[in-house]
Amino acid sequence: MRRIRLKIAYDGTDFYGFQKLPGRRTVEEELNRALSEICRESITVIGASRTDSGVHALGNIAVFDTESTIPEDRFCLAANTKLPEDIRLLSSESCELSWHPRRQECIKTYEYHIYNSRIMDPLKRRYSLHCPYRLDKDAMSSALEFFIGSHDFTAFSNPASQVLMRGGSPVRRISDAELYCEGSELAEDRHGEMILKLRGNGFLYHMVRIIAGTLIEVGTGARRPESIKDILISGDRRKAGMTAPACGLWLRSIVYETDGMDI
Amino acid sequence: MRRIRLKIAYDGTDFYGFQKLPGRRTVEEELNRALSEICRESITVIGASRTDSGVHALGNIAVFDTESTIPEDRFCLAANTKLPEDIRLLSSESCELSWHPRRQECIKTYEYHIYNSRIMDPLKRRYSLHCPYRLDKDAMSSALEFFIGSHDFTAFSNPASQVLMRGGSPVRRISDAELYCEGSELAEDRHGEMILKLRGNGFLYHMVRIIAGTLIEVGTGARRPESIKDILISGDRRKAGMTAPACGLWLRSIVYETDGMDI
Repeated sequence: MRRIRLKIAYDGTDFYGFQKLPGRRTVEEELNRALSEICRESITVIGASRTDSGVHALGNIAVFDTESTIPEDRFCLAANTKLPEDIRLLSSESCELSWHPRRQECIKTYEYHIYNSRIMDPLKRRYSLHCPYRLDKDAMSSALEFFIGSHDFTAFSNPASQVLMRGGSPVRRISDAELYCEGSELAEDRHGEMILKLRGNGFLYHMVRIIAGTLIEVGTGARRPESIKDILISGDRRKAGMTAPACGLWLRSIVYETDGMDI
Repeated sequence: MRRIRLKIAYDGTDFYGFQKLPGRRTVEEELNRALSEICRESITVIGASRTDSGVHALGNIAVFDTESTIPEDRFCLAANTKLPEDIRLLSSESCELSWHPRRQECIKTYEYHIYNSRIMDPLKRRYSLHCPYRLDKDAMSSALEFFIGSHDFTAFSNPASQVLMRGGSPVRRISDAELYCEGSELAEDRHGEMILKLRGNGFLYHMVRIIAGTLIEVGTGARRPESIKDILISGDRRKAGMTAPACGLWLRSIVYETDGMDI
């Protein structure tokens, strides 16, 4: 028996999220189907990040166990011939049988893409949130500073969070946060594509999307940047902003600290 | 009666091209339907570039005539509320009743997007051609030089070209041509996104896609850059390379010389 670790990219638009859900098209189900075909045994993957419906990934991680004798790096190429075009395996390699993608220290990098223009670019619509209002990037960047470091992120998480309901810690550490723009000819007096990049040791349910939604409200002038401090302290979800839609969220990468490797 | 000029963007993936085609979803048909609803009369648009099935546009131009009294710039906003998300009107303005988008001198800018990486990025798959082979960018850039200037492009056009069949001139002038890369974390030892940009006073049927297909063959080493010269002189379509798929082609803009305006 071997354990194989996969790096996975997908366009989340047409999936009901990563995790298996009866009667729905999910990333997990497609992976299980393709890998079972290749290995000629029933395969069940375990994902690192069970992304929500509509969320994209360029570096999610999963593992599965197999008796097959296929060389470790060949699972990737073989599965890609069986997978739909909106999922691609980027790599496959053996790992310890005890290695579990959700029980290791890691750094996750998420991006939230906002397309800031009066009129949406139809080529961006699947992968970013359209925000037609003029956004104050400097105010958003100031607000972003307050998220860096270790905080109780209860106010910026969905109360239905499994982790919180099971009594898990609401403290997470954001090690890096940046907001940058990639201009667009269509954007006129707006910013074009704005990318919010957050790097941290874990994120609560909906945390990146609520941070993005709150920053947009700072950008439109509906909130002051300093208000973030008070919202964090309050631990009250109702004080934070809207949950920004899933389409703008990209899981960019997961780096495990045990092996220091960006797999 | 007024003539209104539109600037249009669309994701061509789910359209059978611009031009009306019975029983098929086309950009023209969606525009006619939305504008007829708004104007409360039967509207038929005339497009500048009748892009093929699957081709994208960020700056196609069309005109239509109307008796309605809606202010010129409001057609854009009103129609966007009636149009599907894969088409957006970027602007609308009055023009002379005699102004015809295919009967004016103009400069068109096309881009052909190649995603050069062993494994396709699923978020790029609708908007670029996947090329997994290692491409020699320098060789492709050398080949590109031969296209600049005025040439008989018969060898780089589809023989079914309406213009050529009607006895029109096969000579076109490419004023600018460039090839540049936008790196990608997923691309490893390949180039990531390669963008071929061509600017000229008109393009024959499939011309950009055949140029792109031929350049890719130069990039893989199947052809020498200098061969372009001979292919142009031969006037023989069979000597040029494959017609690259529609998904990688973007009509970026059309600038009319009469008003010097990029509309």
